[in-house]
Amino acid sequence: STIYIMGSSPNSKPKIVRGSAGYVLEDVPHMADYIPDLPASSPHNYFNFTLSLSLSLLFFFIIIHIYSNPLQTNPAYSVVKQYFVHVDDSVPQKIISNKDSPRGVHFRRAGPRQRVYFEADDVQAAIVTCGGLCPGLNTVIRELVCALYHMYGVKKILGINGGYKGFYAHNTISLTPKNVNDIHKRGGTVLGSSRGGHDTTKIVDSIQDRGINQVYIIGGDGTQRGADRIFEEIRRRRLKVAVVGIPKTIDNDIPVIDKSFGFDTAVEEAQRAINAAHVEAESGENGIGVVKLMGRYSGFIAMYATLASRDVDCCLIPESPFYLEGPGGLFEFAEKRLKENGHMVIVIAEGAGQELVSESIQSMHKQDASGNKLLQDVGLWISQKIKEHFAKQKTMTINLKYIDPTYMIRAVPSNASDNVYCTLLAQSAVHGAMAGYTGFTSGLVNGRHAYIPFYRIIEGQNKVVITDRMWARLLSSTNQPSFMISKVLIEEKREEEEENNEGQQ
Amino acid sequence: STIYIMGSSPNSKPKIVRGSAGYVLEDVPHMADYIPDLPASSPHNYFNFTLSLSLSLLFFFIIIHIYSNPLQTNPAYSVVKQYFVHVDDSVPQKIISNKDSPRGVHFRRAGPRQRVYFEADDVQAAIVTCGGLCPGLNTVIRELVCALYHMYGVKKILGINGGYKGFYAHNTISLTPKNVNDIHKRGGTVLGSSRGGHDTTKIVDSIQDRGINQVYIIGGDGTQRGADRIFEEIRRRRLKVAVVGIPKTIDNDIPVIDKSFGFDTAVEEAQRAINAAHVEAESGENGIGVVKLMGRYSGFIAMYATLASRDVDCCLIPESPFYLEGPGGLFEFAEKRLKENGHMVIVIAEGAGQELVSESIQSMHKQDASGNKLLQDVGLWISQKIKEHFAKQKTMTINLKYIDPTYMIRAVPSNASDNVYCTLLAQSAVHGAMAGYTGFTSGLVNGRHAYIPFYRIIEGQNKVVITDRMWARLLSSTNQPSFMISKVLIEEKREEEEENNEGQQ
Amino acid sequence: STIYIMGSSPNSKPKIVRGSAGYVLEDVPHMADYIPDLPASSPHNYFNFTLSLSLSLLFFFIIIHIYSNPLQTNPAYSVVKQYFVHVDDSVPQKIISNKDSPRGVHFRRAGPRQRVYFEADDVQAAIVTCGGLCPGLNTVIRELVCALYHMYGVKKILGINGGYKGFYAHNTISLTPKNVNDIHKRGGTVLGSSRGGHDTTKIVDSIQDRGINQVYIIGGDGTQRGADRIFEEIRRRRLKVAVVGIPKTIDNDIPVIDKSFGFDTAVEEAQRAINAAHVEAESGENGIGVVKLMGRYSGFIAMYATLASRDVDCCLIPESPFYLEGPGGLFEFAEKRLKENGHMVIVIAEGAGQELVSESIQSMHKQDASGNKLLQDVGLWISQKIKEHFAKQKTMTINLKYIDPTYMIRAVPSNASDNVYCTLLAQSAVHGAMAGYTGFTSGLVNGRHAYIPFYRIIEGQNKVVITDRMWARLLSSTNQPSFMISKVLIEEKREEEEENNEGQQ
Amino acid sequence: STIYIMGSSPNSKPKIVRGSAGYVLEDVPHMADYIPDLPASSPHNYFNFTLSLSLSLLFFFIIIHIYSNPLQTNPAYSVVKQYFVHVDDSVPQKIISNKDSPRGVHFRRAGPRQRVYFEADDVQAAIVTCGGLCPGLNTVIRELVCALYHMYGVKKILGINGGYKGFYAHNTISLTPKNVNDIHKRGGTVLGSSRGGHDTTKIVDSIQDRGINQVYIIGGDGTQRGADRIFEEIRRRRLKVAVVGIPKTIDNDIPVIDKSFGFDTAVEEAQRAINAAHVEAESGENGIGVVKLMGRYSGFIAMYATLASRDVDCCLIPESPFYLEGPGGLFEFAEKRLKENGHMVIVIAEGAGQELVSESIQSMHKQDASGNKLLQDVGLWISQKIKEHFAKQKTMTINLKYIDPTYMIRAVPSNASDNVYCTLLAQSAVHGAMAGYTGFTSGLVNGRHAYIPFYRIIEGQNKVVITDRMWARLLSSTNQPSFMISKVLIEEKREEEEENNEGQQ
Repeated sequence: STIYIMGSSPNSKPKIVRGSAGYVLEDVPHMADYIPDLPASSPHNYFNFTLSLSLSLLFFFIIIHIYSNPLQTNPAYSVVKQYFVHVDDSVPQKIISNKDSPRGVHFRRAGPRQRVYFEADDVQAAIVTCGGLCPGLNTVIRELVCALYHMYGVKKILGINGGYKGFYAHNTISLTPKNVNDIHKRGGTVLGSSRGGHDTTKIVDSIQDRGINQVYIIGGDGTQRGADRIFEEIRRRRLKVAVVGIPKTIDNDIPVIDKSFGFDTAVEEAQRAINAAHVEAESGENGIGVVKLMGRYSGFIAMYATLASRDVDCCLIPESPFYLEGPGGLFEFAEKRLKENGHMVIVIAEGAGQELVSESIQSMHKQDASGNKLLQDVGLWISQKIKEHFAKQKTMTINLKYIDPTYMIRAVPSNASDNVYCTLLAQSAVHGAMAGYTGFTSGLVNGRHAYIPFYRIIEGQNKVVITDRMWARLLSSTNQPSFMISKVLIEEKREEEEENNEGQQ
Repeated sequence: STIYIMGSSPNSKPKIVRGSAGYVLEDVPHMADYIPDLPASSPHNYFNFTLSLSLSLLFFFIIIHIYSNPLQTNPAYSVVKQYFVHVDDSVPQKIISNKDSPRGVHFRRAGPRQRVYFEADDVQAAIVTCGGLCPGLNTVIRELVCALYHMYGVKKILGINGGYKGFYAHNTISLTPKNVNDIHKRGGTVLGSSRGGHDTTKIVDSIQDRGINQVYIIGGDGTQRGADRIFEEIRRRRLKVAVVGIPKTIDNDIPVIDKSFGFDTAVEEAQRAINAAHVEAESGENGIGVVKLMGRYSGFIAMYATLASRDVDCCLIPESPFYLEGPGGLFEFAEKRLKENGHMVIVIAEGAGQELVSESIQSMHKQDASGNKLLQDVGLWISQKIKEHFAKQKTMTINLKYIDPTYMIRAVPSNASDNVYCTLLAQSAVHGAMAGYTGFTSGLVNGRHAYIPFYRIIEGQNKVVITDRMWARLLSSTNQPSFMISKVLIEEKREEEEENNEGQQ
Repeated sequence: STIYIMGSSPNSKPKIVRGSAGYVLEDVPHMADYIPDLPASSPHNYFNFTLSLSLSLLFFFIIIHIYSNPLQTNPAYSVVKQYFVHVDDSVPQKIISNKDSPRGVHFRRAGPRQRVYFEADDVQAAIVTCGGLCPGLNTVIRELVCALYHMYGVKKILGINGGYKGFYAHNTISLTPKNVNDIHKRGGTVLGSSRGGHDTTKIVDSIQDRGINQVYIIGGDGTQRGADRIFEEIRRRRLKVAVVGIPKTIDNDIPVIDKSFGFDTAVEEAQRAINAAHVEAESGENGIGVVKLMGRYSGFIAMYATLASRDVDCCLIPESPFYLEGPGGLFEFAEKRLKENGHMVIVIAEGAGQELVSESIQSMHKQDASGNKLLQDVGLWISQKIKEHFAKQKTMTINLKYIDPTYMIRAVPSNASDNVYCTLLAQSAVHGAMAGYTGFTSGLVNGRHAYIPFYRIIEGQNKVVITDRMWARLLSSTNQPSFMISKVLIEEKREEEEENNEGQQ
Repeated sequence: STIYIMGSSPNSKPKIVRGSAGYVLEDVPHMADYIPDLPASSPHNYFNFTLSLSLSLLFFFIIIHIYSNPLQTNPAYSVVKQYFVHVDDSVPQKIISNKDSPRGVHFRRAGPRQRVYFEADDVQAAIVTCGGLCPGLNTVIRELVCALYHMYGVKKILGINGGYKGFYAHNTISLTPKNVNDIHKRGGTVLGSSRGGHDTTKIVDSIQDRGINQVYIIGGDGTQRGADRIFEEIRRRRLKVAVVGIPKTIDNDIPVIDKSFGFDTAVEEAQRAINAAHVEAESGENGIGVVKLMGRYSGFIAMYATLASRDVDCCLIPESPFYLEGPGGLFEFAEKRLKENGHMVIVIAEGAGQELVSESIQSMHKQDASGNKLLQDVGLWISQKIKEHFAKQKTMTINLKYIDPTYMIRAVPSNASDNVYCTLLAQSAVHGAMAGYTGFTSGLVNGRHAYIPFYRIIEGQNKVVITDRMWARLLSSTNQPSFMISKVLIEEKREEEEENNEGQQ
């Protein structure tokens, strides 16, 4: 039975459905949750559908107008039996289980529904891309347009220019299958993007003013948080507008979902930089190649790029603190590796060692802002530190080459695998919006496309679990020190010494 | 409770475990199933373990010697809590469910176990690659060697040259982390490969003679069938030899598993051929680009390459029969598309339309074997047919260009995503063998690595389900005719006409 | 002194200028050669220029109107001293010399002239691409448009669709810097192309009707021959129309010029196919990789691709006849190489061994046209022959893989080096036409851009000289038999035997 | 007649030969110039050759022992007529001429000679790579080894590790065709490299001690200068050692030669960075993409990469001074371009604007060395300056992305075109050394391989001539300001104003 409290004033409490054997469905909002009446414009095409919600706290009967899905008459789909997703289908969040484990949390399965809540002619869709670049943005835009147009016959599709601010600060452009036909072969986003603050009220005003009733928002966790606020404002105003998020993060740090689009392409492209660092390191005397990769809060790209390459000697990520000096530190490891192999390659995620960087910069003179600002780039900083160390040591002359391929990675077009992924992600988003769902993100969960409520997407960041096997595999592949242990060991040793000292007293 | 009948004469009946809420585990064989006693060579390192199988038909108590996993002391793994897979962990085969659905079939989760059945010094491992090339073969070889050597301390690893026959017809080579260090950057297989028959008895003789006790067999469905026979013979002889399959098929047609390694790389590389066909078609007058892709029995590469490219007008696969002439046929569609766009691109899987090809060739003269043999290539055949059609029609002059990129696709090194996949596949295989499991294939099931009994892998072929949504997506993307319907329609029309005729009589 | 006979009836005899030390200039025609009076439309912008040709046979004084080059006021060029090419500059055809050698044949140097024969507003330019695809076609189109527009202010530029026939059979499209801005990133030709016959009279009629006065014709030797006929007809009609050829041939078989555009790109792209063939050959038992490359009459691509790759064991080109059977033949070499290395790679140009192919096909049954036609593909034919040979021999089982990358090579966009080359080629062509030259091809001669009279371009084909050092380098790199010698040796041996036999009689 | 002064004490004055019509040959030294007697070890294979130098100042007759070239019996070469280069063949430095121009400077043509000065068994060759990485280093190494081994039968070939210092500070490695077989597919140099000082005397000592008699030195202008000193020392000691330079400079700044190996590959690879900068710039609001390319003293890579890409708005090189502020400055241009197009791409050579950078850094506080040092990177510096400018202006918010692809470009393997070039360069070097020439660099002059005396290679640097047409083409392609003019204009304006002011007084 669905435990969902709905009154005259809608709110955004989670919609939870429970089933047998510990089954839990974390469902997504539906426009029908807060709009008592959805008029159907073309009377010859609809049927009355009396939905008696089986709630004990139900105050009134809702009568809404629903249309049959135009895909039912689409020649491409007419051959497909069971084309439509069963209304109760769901995807489990955790699938590793044993014979007695409870079934756990599930999400609503994505896909076309037999009944839709929009007529093609009434739809005014809008697409916006926010935040940094990521391979596949253009493919998602293209496929949203194609799915709306070819599957559902939607002709009015707006592109919002330059991110969230574009809703009120820029002109929109009209998107058609023809003008997006080749954009998936180019990197970047044809809509432009931007970072930074935006005004939710002005956005929703603009949505109302322009008559937009489907909003597709492509962006990272900040963007999804913004989408949630837009959705809440829309619900407050009881607008018949579906708000759909499509998760974009080259860092792969969005929770719940398997991986974000563009991630595979980014890891692939990162190989070029690692290869170059390896060649440079091998060709110089005591050559050290340093490659900075994306990952402000999570080291997924660094970790996967390291695992895929197998030429990396040390991978530093935000989740695994490290230290430079002393036993078990990076300098010691570098010296050892150079003596053994004559060269080494270090991959560092942009968010790694942030506390070390801050310390360093605070200890510098404050006068020269612009120089210091550069050192906030962890790649420049660590390169500097390593050079200083070996210059001080005077035992060996090193040749360090630093490569920052960030923008060269972000700007490539998506590869074939990401292209297919973006296609399904976009189609799922459109199916969901047409079916009246809102306030959800379209995402891949255990290889299946699902609709995830915003609150689960924005509740935190996905991180590399360094006590998990994937990180162990990496440590085993690089043979780098797990700085953690050594740190603990040193502390233990120090305590021991102190104890001894105390004992001697 | 485990329902597994074990007597003095072992056999290979499925090991089925049932649990609550419809849970079924299709377990894999274990060496302990048929070997009553496993001696431990180093007495200081083992402990007695009395396994009382809770079977009603149990005849005797088995006492086997088991070792603790050396990974427990490996520095890379020691930081990782819960590194070892829980003994009862399993992965479901079907994950789409609703609140009342039964839990269904599961497979044993892959990963390291706390207890292993081999001591490093006693292991003599062998690796063999069989069948056609596939991106990633060298990565799998490399990672098997590295996992055995670095994780478990296994030093004796043999490479069998030239496929199954190599066990008795060729010399072996010794594999070390050093001599496989860079092979993942090259396409093909450093071990060589071969197709065709082999003698199971001679292979098992060679395994015994060479003292091999872990056999890693990389190959497609035929190869896995061979691996099953080798496993049965080894069980018959009650040898302490683990037989592990690693599924390889560029066609992605192995059942149960999500996708085979190298598939992503192949779809990526296929884009080049499709792009070229598109450019050629666009630049010529009434240009037709025909690309043949791999897929003898299943059209996965053709389907995904088409979906990833978005430049394809028609995709023909073995699962979807088609016809050339008449209404709703390929020629009619080609004429229409050329009139509309001036060009078209056709992707055809190598196994598509085989019955049409056979008919064609039978109708030809028998004298010229070599010419006809070429026409068994469906790409050459369909190119010929299209040319003949338009030459006969005389309404338009076409420019057809045929591209067969098969070997250029198969021979590339695997991309980053496949490299990581191959790594995990190889490590899973090694963990399973070390833990004493045998007669299984290491595979990805719903994004998790699992051990699948041979009989499930070889029971049939994975095929594109043309009544499923993925194929509908493709039809929607290409707007090609679904030949099926038209055929039915024509037949219906004909029947109707016949009925009318009958009525007139 | 210029030896050039000009009367009332113009003709196309070579314009030859002789100088000191054996200097010979083979000059190109100029519109002033056959048009006695060129009116200048804007009187404020021209000056009278009395050209008294220093000919003893001069019948009348020509007064022609000439304009100063608008580049003189272009900001980009105004900083450049000596921007304009000296009127007498020429480029030698042969540059290897010794201290006493005569200076030999020269061509007119390409580049901007101080005086031009067209005013921007009066120019109606047309661009046409003919024949097969070649990397760089779109770059040439783009750069012709940009040079006309940005350098000379020409606004009216037509693209002729679909090759020569397009002049009278298709619509034209208007070309602007904006609509050609990104085309150099795509393969093929945006204008479309075609092969086959055309009607010179109808083309010149169309040129007259459309008011075209500059024609840029991009194509191979057949196309240049057509351009020559168009030029002759235009001269016959005494039209003020400049006809300029831009040589295009992926085979690099156009005489006089250093290399054709797209050649570098093609050789680069061919490496993929050779690499794949090498991987396939190495991975199979007695693997043979056969790669067919472009080159109907000349083996330049095959030769350079072989030299660049270094993985090829045998390179067969049209210029070097070979034979299959017997001592010194291909089969013997293949057996030897397989025994030594276990694999081999053969590169064959499409025009190699044509006489062998013809013989083969004539000896087959005539009934099955379509099968036999396929065997006219030398790659399929030689693959068949090698397979048959080893099947007959029964001494070794081979694995032959045949790769035909032709269309995948032709369709790629040009690389950076070809992009720059195409740019200079296009600019040279425009400078020449603006300066009133006509009936010439723009080409690279010893690294310098020059204007070459049509008759030199169409007088024959450039071929690999197999008695030259480049071919010797290739033989040395592959260690393949130089079939020539062996043939001679066999013939000599046979003659010897016959002599002996005769002697015995 | 050869004007070459030779006495008992040889020196390195240019060897000049003059011919008819102003012909001048700048010849390279020959070992016979300073060694009176070259003993031949195998008497059956040589012939006495009395070389009477036709010099008026000749003091004595030199009798030297010379061998016939083993290539004469090499099967690959035996088919080639006129395989050997004519002894007097030369290549002109300037080829643009007119009917009366003098013939000018020539260099000796490279290639095999009929007579050689070394016997295969006596040769001990050494190869060394110095300075920064460049695509093609490994191909040159491979082809030197293959040419020595396969063409001349030389078996003793040493690789010097780690640059010049390696002669006395490191171990050597033995090079064979087998161990260099695949190195051309990898970037970098298998020999390692180094920069910095070295001791000529110790190098020549080592050459003597190790019995080396052919030294192949691959490096840039500093390296060639070192090679010249080594050659002079060897000549002083009258050693029978050929010293051969192979010019390596990714910057293409070596004089006389057409282009250096690896240049094409570098320009090609630079396109990736420019594309990425373009995508980033287009996708952001007022996006500016800045790409730093190689070129400390010359802007060839920046210029060609800009011409090849066509997406660049401004190209800054060392040869063309620029300024930031004021009318005609970079900031003004950037503002204009952003207003027009919304984005811009700047390519800057690493040596551009050095005087501006120095000024900037001197004006900063001296305390923070490490931060300031970073700003000596012109790319970081200009990015900072542009950001500061727009932050100060507050009229528009820009999004600047800086890409430094230097190491990613240097480290790629050479492309096909460079592979062939490296092959010919290496073979030319070997032919020259075997023929007894020394003190020369092997280089491409007007498309022909030639031997250039060291003094011509090290006399200066090749630079982009900004008053030449290639730079005009670039200005025309980017429409960037030619800062030169504006500067002059401003100065003129200022002078004018001052004059006016003066007049008012």
